[in-house]
Amino acid sequence: MVNSRTASPFKPVPDGTVTSPKGFQAGAVYSGLKTEGEGKLDLAILYAEKPCTAAGVFTTSTFKAASLRVCERHIAGGKAQAVVVNAGIANAYVGEQGVKDAEEICALVGRKLGLSPGRVLIASTGLTGMELPMGIIRRAVPGIPLARTGGHDMARAIMTTDRRPKEMAVSFELGGKTVTLGGIAKGAGMIHPNMATMLVFLTTDAAVERRFLQAALRDAADATFNMLTIDGDTSPSDTLLVLASGAAGNKHVKSDSPDADVFRAALTHVCAFLAKSIARDGEGAEKVIEVTVDGAASQKDARDAARTIAGSTLVKAAVHGNDPNWGRVIAALGRSGARVAEDRLVCYINGICVFDEGKPIPFFREAAVKAMSAPEVSIRVSLNLGDASATAWGCDLTEEYVTFNSKYTT
Amino acid sequence: MVNSRTASPFKPVPDGTVTSPKGFQAGAVYSGLKTEGEGKLDLAILYAEKPCTAAGVFTTSTFKAASLRVCERHIAGGKAQAVVVNAGIANAYVGEQGVKDAEEICALVGRKLGLSPGRVLIASTGLTGMELPMGIIRRAVPGIPLARTGGHDMARAIMTTDRRPKEMAVSFELGGKTVTLGGIAKGAGMIHPNMATMLVFLTTDAAVERRFLQAALRDAADATFNMLTIDGDTSPSDTLLVLASGAAGNKHVKSDSPDADVFRAALTHVCAFLAKSIARDGEGAEKVIEVTVDGAASQKDARDAARTIAGSTLVKAAVHGNDPNWGRVIAALGRSGARVAEDRLVCYINGICVFDEGKPIPFFREAAVKAMSAPEVSIRVSLNLGDASATAWGCDLTEEYVTFNSKYTT
Repeated sequence: MVNSRTASPFKPVPDGTVTSPKGFQAGAVYSGLKTEGEGKLDLAILYAEKPCTAAGVFTTSTFKAASLRVCERHIAGGKAQAVVVNAGIANAYVGEQGVKDAEEICALVGRKLGLSPGRVLIASTGLTGMELPMGIIRRAVPGIPLARTGGHDMARAIMTTDRRPKEMAVSFELGGKTVTLGGIAKGAGMIHPNMATMLVFLTTDAAVERRFLQAALRDAADATFNMLTIDGDTSPSDTLLVLASGAAGNKHVKSDSPDADVFRAALTHVCAFLAKSIARDGEGAEKVIEVTVDGAASQKDARDAARTIAGSTLVKAAVHGNDPNWGRVIAALGRSGARVAEDRLVCYINGICVFDEGKPIPFFREAAVKAMSAPEVSIRVSLNLGDASATAWGCDLTEEYVTFNSKYTT
Repeated sequence: MVNSRTASPFKPVPDGTVTSPKGFQAGAVYSGLKTEGEGKLDLAILYAEKPCTAAGVFTTSTFKAASLRVCERHIAGGKAQAVVVNAGIANAYVGEQGVKDAEEICALVGRKLGLSPGRVLIASTGLTGMELPMGIIRRAVPGIPLARTGGHDMARAIMTTDRRPKEMAVSFELGGKTVTLGGIAKGAGMIHPNMATMLVFLTTDAAVERRFLQAALRDAADATFNMLTIDGDTSPSDTLLVLASGAAGNKHVKSDSPDADVFRAALTHVCAFLAKSIARDGEGAEKVIEVTVDGAASQKDARDAARTIAGSTLVKAAVHGNDPNWGRVIAALGRSGARVAEDRLVCYINGICVFDEGKPIPFFREAAVKAMSAPEVSIRVSLNLGDASATAWGCDLTEEYVTFNSKYTT
């Protein structure tokens, strides 16, 4: 995490997106996979002008969508030059046909771009239990336009229940060269059936050694996307990919490079921004909840505690109602498994101390309620046992969430 | 679990409650601890005419209420002759004063009944972060009436947000003697702050060896109360106690007794009934969800899978809307950690097969919607990998739950 008291070394790129780094193009079309109709892009390609080093982190579900299984196979070589994504149909729970279809889509994209199919990565999001309409896809792929500003269209094409596209890019110095790191994301929970998928595509023009890229991506995911909870569910399609083109001309970054930490921090910075954007866009959500646990005895304790508090149904409902309910925060902490000493515990809600040394302390309730009516509610718990800290993000639980998620078919 | 094809060996006792077994009395008064006013009993005593073998299972939270810590200390000797319970104030997050207060209440009850304070167990439920008003309790304890039919009053006294009392008793044969096992429970989730506590008090007139009683209680809790999920939260006061009087005159039951299994099954039977009653009474709940996972590779897999499905926010919302959404059931299964083989998976919702061998199968949606409009929705998932099975209980997620839990202070 970047220290807020010093200037951030990461400069936001205006209108930054996944095609902001040098050497990337993207584009999207409406092929007919989204039932909502025309104007809703649903099939996109990200293309790298030269072969890239690639790394990926995938769903922890024991069920893996067919497209994801093919993507895992293609990325195993560590090189990629394109990513094809469709929204509308997830290509999951369709048996072996799904794998054949995903392979065919990679081949279609490879033919269009002059690449071996194994250099094309793939992701799908949308309805499950339904085969991809390959006729539509075969017709659409050749017509997907590619441009160096195409990241914005791709960001829209991957949306399902998202209310807005999520994209950003930063530039920073790496070994004396200016490099750029950008990304797009989707993921909002489930309004429509089985659409909880989180997809994130990152690009950079930095030159990065593959093993280090994979390790840095895993660490960034653990600190950001894995600290994000909308409704606790996991999709068979969750995919996080990064492609590094090397077009910036820096010396390859490896784990023992002097600038390894800068690259790691940049990756975490962009991932944290996208994770928070996903939380803000949670289904029916009106507020983002940011939970920081510090003074923990271990990193695992800090993460378990922050995530459990941010994911608590009762904490989420209390935030929705502007209720400074420390009891629910502490109940979640108590079942998180983190080591705690009741008499050292301090809890703040939007900066107001509500619990100190194991007991609630008097606070002016109306002031706390007013502070909590902001669109972001921060909860800080100090365990005062050690040096580890972690931040988790979530969103409030609203009646709208329940209505959407119970009424859509009947 | 009792095989449903043979007659149950456990005969329900009409109006059965915690005082149905021989040798137990109970009673309750309104002392002023519940703010809702007169007519709401809030302080109760369960009294055994002779010393009992006692066993207990307590909260898994790292935070333990003061009353619970005193109860754990008193039960360590394995003998008890009374239980005192108050509702309204939980005696939690009040520092060392809470322990002193709980000890004093046990002493007051001991004086009333002619018992050593160490033979008195204690539990408290209600608001946290607030000291018990000891003046009120000192005045009230001597006036608590005790009667062999007093279990019903005690069942009402322990209620907080519960809509109805939960009580039952069964009689069965044990070593040629007729014995009775009864119990009461409370626990409904949180409408008011920090009132999620589950309290369960069981009694039996069977003679049971202590170590076996403790092990059987733990097993029964794992198969029932630990398979129950209302909103995933845990209270610092969760308490399950059993007192065995021996008044039935049977030979002491031990782990190697021929009738050990019968006693175990009876304990599980009563606990399952009470657990299901708690699920039915979940805050804002309109339906009970019963999830059975069979064919699992291990007992742990079966329990993890059943509990994760029953606790899924999205499954709960789907049940609320009568939506036969197999995708959400399978998403929960996929993140439960249970071993699965996608192509062997079968899923039934209220008896209707909706997913078979890894793919959704056509079903008449209107029939499924109609079947799901019943007050109980059963979900069965067959993993077809082994012989282990487990059942979990939960309730639907309603707009009312969110409204109650977000609006109560503001």
